[in-house]
Amino acid sequence: MKARVTVTLKNGVLDPQGKAIEGALGSLGFAGVASVRQGKVFDIEVAETDAGKAKAELEAMAAKLLANTVIENYRVEIVG
Amino acid sequence: MKARVTVTLKNGVLDPQGKAIEGALGSLGFAGVASVRQGKVFDIEVAETDAGKAKAELEAMAAKLLANTVIENYRVEIVG
Repeated sequence: MKARVTVTLKNGVLDPQGKAIEGALGSLGFAGVASVRQGKVFDIEVAETDAGKAKAELEAMAAKLLANTVIENYRVEIVG
Repeated sequence: MKARVTVTLKNGVLDPQGKAIEGALGSLGFAGVASVRQGKVFDIEVAETDAGKAKAELEAMAAKLLANTVIENYRVEIVG
């Protein structure tokens, strides 16, 4: 089973990387960039064939390793 | 206008970070992880209000800065 786990910063958490990208886009001539927030995406393939069980397992992976749940949110999507 | 740019490695490109995460998940007791590929996601807000123009602008940002087009693919989604 294939899934995508998307990890993004929680609202209100400062994103220095995003700010740096905003600045770089501006200096490359892209006007009108209001904000940039950077996150991570993990494309994971698991042996589990039951979607419910796979989702629960991936949620546990995200909570334990892929995301820092103090400052990050995660979302698990089963893609196939 | 809000958009999400997802940047992932092209097929065939080695992903050492993904391999490290695979190993870590295994040592945390998650059996049955076949593969992990890590990518980046950018949530960008632009002043442009026309979806077509915004998408073209974001494609240019991705090609110029957000993705290394030699080894990475990018996908632009207008989300609102």
